[in-house]
Amino acid sequence: MDLETFINKEKGKQIVLVQGLGFVGSVMSLVVANSINGDYAVIGIDQDTNEGRKTVNLLNNGIFPITADDPKIQEYFEYARKCGNFFATVDPAAYSAADVIIVDINLDVKKISNIQYELTDYSVNLEPFKRAMETIGSYCKPDVLILVETTVPPGTCKNLVTPIIKNALKERGLNVDKICIGHSYERVMPGPEYVDSIQNYYRVYSGIDNKSANAVENFLKTIIRTDKYPLTRLGNTNATEMAKVLENSYRAMNIAFVVEWSRMAEEAGVDLYEVVNAIRQRPTHSNLMFPGIGVGGYCLTKDPLLASWARTNLIGGKDKLLQSETAVSINDQMPRYAFEFLEKRYSKPLIGVKILLLGVSYRGDVGDTRFSPVEYFYRCLLKTGAVVSTHDPYVLIWPELDLKPCQILTEALHKQPDIIVICTGHRIYRQEETINAFLQNEPLWIYDTIGFLSKEQISKLQQKHKVIVLGRGNL
Amino acid sequence: MDLETFINKEKGKQIVLVQGLGFVGSVMSLVVANSINGDYAVIGIDQDTNEGRKTVNLLNNGIFPITADDPKIQEYFEYARKCGNFFATVDPAAYSAADVIIVDINLDVKKISNIQYELTDYSVNLEPFKRAMETIGSYCKPDVLILVETTVPPGTCKNLVTPIIKNALKERGLNVDKICIGHSYERVMPGPEYVDSIQNYYRVYSGIDNKSANAVENFLKTIIRTDKYPLTRLGNTNATEMAKVLENSYRAMNIAFVVEWSRMAEEAGVDLYEVVNAIRQRPTHSNLMFPGIGVGGYCLTKDPLLASWARTNLIGGKDKLLQSETAVSINDQMPRYAFEFLEKRYSKPLIGVKILLLGVSYRGDVGDTRFSPVEYFYRCLLKTGAVVSTHDPYVLIWPELDLKPCQILTEALHKQPDIIVICTGHRIYRQEETINAFLQNEPLWIYDTIGFLSKEQISKLQQKHKVIVLGRGNL
Repeated sequence: MDLETFINKEKGKQIVLVQGLGFVGSVMSLVVANSINGDYAVIGIDQDTNEGRKTVNLLNNGIFPITADDPKIQEYFEYARKCGNFFATVDPAAYSAADVIIVDINLDVKKISNIQYELTDYSVNLEPFKRAMETIGSYCKPDVLILVETTVPPGTCKNLVTPIIKNALKERGLNVDKICIGHSYERVMPGPEYVDSIQNYYRVYSGIDNKSANAVENFLKTIIRTDKYPLTRLGNTNATEMAKVLENSYRAMNIAFVVEWSRMAEEAGVDLYEVVNAIRQRPTHSNLMFPGIGVGGYCLTKDPLLASWARTNLIGGKDKLLQSETAVSINDQMPRYAFEFLEKRYSKPLIGVKILLLGVSYRGDVGDTRFSPVEYFYRCLLKTGAVVSTHDPYVLIWPELDLKPCQILTEALHKQPDIIVICTGHRIYRQEETINAFLQNEPLWIYDTIGFLSKEQISKLQQKHKVIVLGRGNL
Repeated sequence: MDLETFINKEKGKQIVLVQGLGFVGSVMSLVVANSINGDYAVIGIDQDTNEGRKTVNLLNNGIFPITADDPKIQEYFEYARKCGNFFATVDPAAYSAADVIIVDINLDVKKISNIQYELTDYSVNLEPFKRAMETIGSYCKPDVLILVETTVPPGTCKNLVTPIIKNALKERGLNVDKICIGHSYERVMPGPEYVDSIQNYYRVYSGIDNKSANAVENFLKTIIRTDKYPLTRLGNTNATEMAKVLENSYRAMNIAFVVEWSRMAEEAGVDLYEVVNAIRQRPTHSNLMFPGIGVGGYCLTKDPLLASWARTNLIGGKDKLLQSETAVSINDQMPRYAFEFLEKRYSKPLIGVKILLLGVSYRGDVGDTRFSPVEYFYRCLLKTGAVVSTHDPYVLIWPELDLKPCQILTEALHKQPDIIVICTGHRIYRQEETINAFLQNEPLWIYDTIGFLSKEQISKLQQKHKVIVLGRGNL
């Protein structure tokens, strides 16, 4: 089927176009195709590149491009295919058919760090995002609703998207007063509740004017369970754009906060997990974070920088958001701390030592390696001359390192590593079966970087092995 | 009655001595005298100074030395007086009678700041605390339980208290193995739930050895409702000492985090309260703080520094807790930001402008002015030549400024201020009656530094007055 055939076939339905078919856009497409109260034809569009065409072909051939634990993905995908209301393309002509355009493209930050992984500088390149907006402007209907979901530097919808779209319409001799532009950020979480993180979760939204905000509201009500998760309208697009980066900066900051305390706990012979659990009993302190190997993923590692950059570049402020920038820099250094902890504790130099890393993705039970802290940890180990192997049942290929983690745990253990490092919270690593498998090995070191093992499991393992846990200064 | 008579009269009871009769010790004495499962004779001891003797006399004459909103204070005090099981003194002989000694003395940090209120240096003087421990050591029974509640630099019980007490016992030719030393920090909150903040709240505790930890546990069970608020034992005294300063640093940090965002919201025309409320819907983000005039009180303003100081001075770490120190410095500057906000917004220079401050204490509905941010705000205004008056129904005398705030709101408003500033969240300031009283005045500016007024109240006031709110960049 081609684009025109699809559009003709779906005539009479509202057409929703999702721009960008990555971690967010691909699932967003399914959610819209399975809308609660609407009846939409959905077009997913990606860039006309090798990768973009590959994604589009996979989707049109019934293969969802992202490995996901959530059974709803398959269910929703099959439903959309049965209805025939979803089509993927790289053809920009699709924009001219759309009644709603959802922007789910990336907006990246380029970080520059020193050898210690301290952040020394960074830049935000808005050009690809601007070009994507220009493409929309050259094709879109004058009364389309453009809903930006991308995490953008605050000020973007007002100072970039709106003038770009309106200028393009003007150049095309079209009315500029009918356009609706809004912002509503997603809180998508790949994993077992991938679909629900869109459909069953709170949303904040805004528009560049009242008409736009109303249009966003009416649309979101058709795809999100707003009866259970009511929408929140904010006063302007700056506010919602700020909310997104603020909430991620808050989380990044709270993680960074624990880093120094974790090192102090080590010095003081204190079990920081025990301390944090005790404090968390207070409702006002329930969100205190635990120490760990580091922060990964696409959001927490860059959003505070987007915010800080925006403050001086789009909002007109004089100062950066220094604290939020510092949080990113501290978190970036966490894998190095995790490495130094091992280096200090291990009885001899790590050169030639066989080290098995359990888990390379940045999140438990998910195969997502984007900005995984395990990458930096791995590089530190390599640099000392350690012989490093990896295991991850969720990651067939580790693209950042072009490396295939072993898929079978017993096989990985058979190679008799000197040190096993638990890096990712995959449930399998604390199953009784796994603990018993560890005990089959010759005496070795087990290093838990994320406080994943229970006290009972640690005791059991200590009968044969040496166990150390980052943040548990008492071990 | 003298000390000896009291001790003879109470023979057969366990004697609990509370060292230090300030905000914590005075209430702690009442809680122990009203114990749940114990039958204690309680001696409160203070220093033999003018102030100490004054406190002791007040207590022995039935006058509780701290003005408090909590009706339980009077109730518990009357019960103790009826039973006759509480006696206050400055006589150190009391220590030799005690079976339990609770340490509730202060341990202060001396801060040095520049003219911008940035923290440039600080010092911790342990000498008074050490002397207090030496006094205990010279008099105490060899099998006494010493329970330290003071917020101390982590490492104190292990590295200071224990050697001081044991050396003193040794010098007195006594057995040093029977002593019990433990740490359990209070979470006392002066205000309407003053007593409950001790008796009905979670507690974390530890001992220098197992025997000590057991002794602390058994004692705490008799005064705290551990059926509802179970105790948490941590592995060593370093851990509980760290927990206390960590939880306060966490709070200080979360406040400091919002400061920069509040200024950015101002620049972006964003209502930060609206943004924070939207984000708080997420359970993982429910503790995000609001902006405000600043942080006051005895704990959050110093505890992060105590922790950082301890890391290098008592624990043997190389580094300071930089982030926690920074949080204190940022929070110290909040009143200056609040001042700058007004200065920038107000139509003309503040020299000669009549400004009325509503509230001078650091906490709503409480008359506690210790380290109140209003003090710094007040000083900023004075420096510009503004004519400042104050109102606070909870503060008869503002000791830090040796000043008597007006007690009657209508009287304060009668003086026709040009600007009214809401500084403290006393409920009275948002009562409808107060809003109406504001509307009786000639047109003026109302500056809400803590986001205390509702949207409806702001609209109502805007009919006559100019309203600005710190953190609400849209006003």
